[in-house]
Amino acid sequence: MPAEKKATLLIKNIGQLVTMAGPVPRLGKQMNDLGLIEGGGVAVAGEEIIAVGKSDDVQGHATLAEGCKVIDAAGAVVTPGLIDPHTHPVFASTREKEFEMRIQGKSYMEIAQAGGGIRSSVRDLRATPAEILLERSKKRLNRLLAHGVTTIEAKSGYGLSTESEIRTLEVIRTLNEGHAIDLVPTFLGAHEVPDEYRDKRKEYIDLLINEMIPAVARENLAEYSDVFCEKGVFDIEESRRIQQAAKDAGLGLRFHADELESTGGAELAASMKAATADHLVYVSDAGIKAMAESGTAAVLLPGTTFSLAGTKYAPARKMIEQGVIVALSTDCNPGSSCTESLPMILSLASLQMKLTAAEGISAVTVNAAVTVERSKMIGRLEVGMQADIVLWDMFDYRELPYHYGVNLVSKVVKKGKLVIDK
Amino acid sequence: MPAEKKATLLIKNIGQLVTMAGPVPRLGKQMNDLGLIEGGGVAVAGEEIIAVGKSDDVQGHATLAEGCKVIDAAGAVVTPGLIDPHTHPVFASTREKEFEMRIQGKSYMEIAQAGGGIRSSVRDLRATPAEILLERSKKRLNRLLAHGVTTIEAKSGYGLSTESEIRTLEVIRTLNEGHAIDLVPTFLGAHEVPDEYRDKRKEYIDLLINEMIPAVARENLAEYSDVFCEKGVFDIEESRRIQQAAKDAGLGLRFHADELESTGGAELAASMKAATADHLVYVSDAGIKAMAESGTAAVLLPGTTFSLAGTKYAPARKMIEQGVIVALSTDCNPGSSCTESLPMILSLASLQMKLTAAEGISAVTVNAAVTVERSKMIGRLEVGMQADIVLWDMFDYRELPYHYGVNLVSKVVKKGKLVIDK
Repeated sequence: MPAEKKATLLIKNIGQLVTMAGPVPRLGKQMNDLGLIEGGGVAVAGEEIIAVGKSDDVQGHATLAEGCKVIDAAGAVVTPGLIDPHTHPVFASTREKEFEMRIQGKSYMEIAQAGGGIRSSVRDLRATPAEILLERSKKRLNRLLAHGVTTIEAKSGYGLSTESEIRTLEVIRTLNEGHAIDLVPTFLGAHEVPDEYRDKRKEYIDLLINEMIPAVARENLAEYSDVFCEKGVFDIEESRRIQQAAKDAGLGLRFHADELESTGGAELAASMKAATADHLVYVSDAGIKAMAESGTAAVLLPGTTFSLAGTKYAPARKMIEQGVIVALSTDCNPGSSCTESLPMILSLASLQMKLTAAEGISAVTVNAAVTVERSKMIGRLEVGMQADIVLWDMFDYRELPYHYGVNLVSKVVKKGKLVIDK
Repeated sequence: MPAEKKATLLIKNIGQLVTMAGPVPRLGKQMNDLGLIEGGGVAVAGEEIIAVGKSDDVQGHATLAEGCKVIDAAGAVVTPGLIDPHTHPVFASTREKEFEMRIQGKSYMEIAQAGGGIRSSVRDLRATPAEILLERSKKRLNRLLAHGVTTIEAKSGYGLSTESEIRTLEVIRTLNEGHAIDLVPTFLGAHEVPDEYRDKRKEYIDLLINEMIPAVARENLAEYSDVFCEKGVFDIEESRRIQQAAKDAGLGLRFHADELESTGGAELAASMKAATADHLVYVSDAGIKAMAESGTAAVLLPGTTFSLAGTKYAPARKMIEQGVIVALSTDCNPGSSCTESLPMILSLASLQMKLTAAEGISAVTVNAAVTVERSKMIGRLEVGMQADIVLWDMFDYRELPYHYGVNLVSKVVKKGKLVIDK
């Protein structure tokens, strides 16, 4: 393990070093393979990992730069930085009153009539200056980072006008430049039909296709386009039109699909070679098969079912068995899943979807990296990869889903820099 | 609001000051009454609250001591310190492997045969020196405190021999003396029948009655006695004998009751005028009625159902409607609920038991204080009460259950001292 570069950071005495070295993506039984090294060490030069192995070997071979930071992991667990592949972090206000209305049995329609729902976040965002949006979103990123998340996919979708969608994507760009977390931007103008287009939805779709998508692509504000493909929002044909325009403009594709009903969203995503189809609570068997064949990843969001007090979770085990690339995410958003804890999602994935701890970790590292097409850089701890690393206050990685609702992160390294140190 | 004493701590500009002033305990609809003051302030002298009211009034009337600490809450939420009325914080090791076995469908018997269950924690604790136990338990208390908990009820029960039960209670006593959290000690020698008494359970019960309970009472090591009253553990008659001995020795009574089946545990607890019956997933209607009549409080533990991947939660709404005193707790323990987050329990109570945010807050403040017979001192923010106060990073108390799986505590004041400051 010769290291030509001098180490600027050395992490030694790692009880369980979860490298995730191995197949990319992890499919089926491979999801249980953590590339685990007991008594491991990692050396970093600048932003890059230069050695990974047994602690003694790494220490023995690494040449330390002057001022090299040495962290004694004291037998604890180390993993790659977590990747959250589906978030809506740029919104103005939380919606806790709606949550309480739901608890008290109010229906979706009653909540909408009381001014709730996505469209309330749209009115709210449009009325909020960019600097406030930025400040509040930054706080959410701080929380994500504190829970071990070093990269997120971040969607717009509470603007729903050319101006406010672009403003949202600009907030994402500013966050990406200034925050330790890397953000992968997704345009979600097709999150809902805004108030002013309720009676002329076709005109809104035309606006998306003729004005918003071209503007986003021209300004290079997003890598992906997403659409809320669901009965009552955008149907299959509308979604296809919107996403075809996005694809033609050079954007990758993601879908909100089959969350509330089986509508063929997964099949559409697969047929368009989308990077991901997300939610998938009601995915059909044909949809699962199509996704496995096309390599379209499933981004599953058990926090959303949980936080909506639902009982039906996406059929994760079936998807794993059928060879679909499975990733997990918080769905961090003000309506249906207000959380910045990806570890909490691992608890839900174990308890409600019967994923092992190792499968859960695969889903938020190597497989999540695949969904944002960054698997050569992040999601594994291997020589040459970006040094995004999390130290956990636990001695067995299986504590991650088991020890629920609390944050067990002790340190976070992003691009070689210690950014969280508890 | 004249304050004779000089303020050593002033918290001003509180957006929502949740005082909990009002009826003790909170029954039925009263649980929604938070004694809320918008734009509130609190003044503290030493360990005691000396003024509570509108921020301007408190500021206008309080005489500040030299060096008085002034905290600007900046419009955020303030509540009493939370009280966790059912914890098992003194254990040696976590049991994450068992959790994963359960996820993979292994039965209780298979897990027991693989060395799991309460008795594995007993073997583990007996083999662990007191200083290690103390250190690990302290870490759990630190986490509880960081989540806004300032008082806990703490049980023994992983010793199950006179020596190791006393050693556990001594650890609890040492923690109580040295840690910011106040601990209310409960003797739970009747948590399980230990390995060495499997074939002579009557002898273990005799040991409890003739040796352990008298020793605990003599040494003043516990305020309460608890028993795991459940089919296969201690039946109704055994539980009655054990608890009668405890009562005769001057201990208050708590019960693990009706968790797995309806066995009449709640009725027994009520008939013995117990302070609490806990779990109650399968409580009978007669049990609810008896508890309401006797004033025996229900301590509900939704985290346990959650963490065992169960679907049946205790009938909290029914108990509230029938006039039972309802409290909530983490059940913090290594087997069935490994968490130190009482806010996480409030999320579960809302989502799974349909409690409003206000009902949840009542259950972990004023009502929880009643279960440990300290309601004149803690659980409310009123003049003369102990200054146990939590500042939250939120503008509406309803964010507490809604914003799940993350810790929104910004500061904790215990007996007038700032002990957590983020």
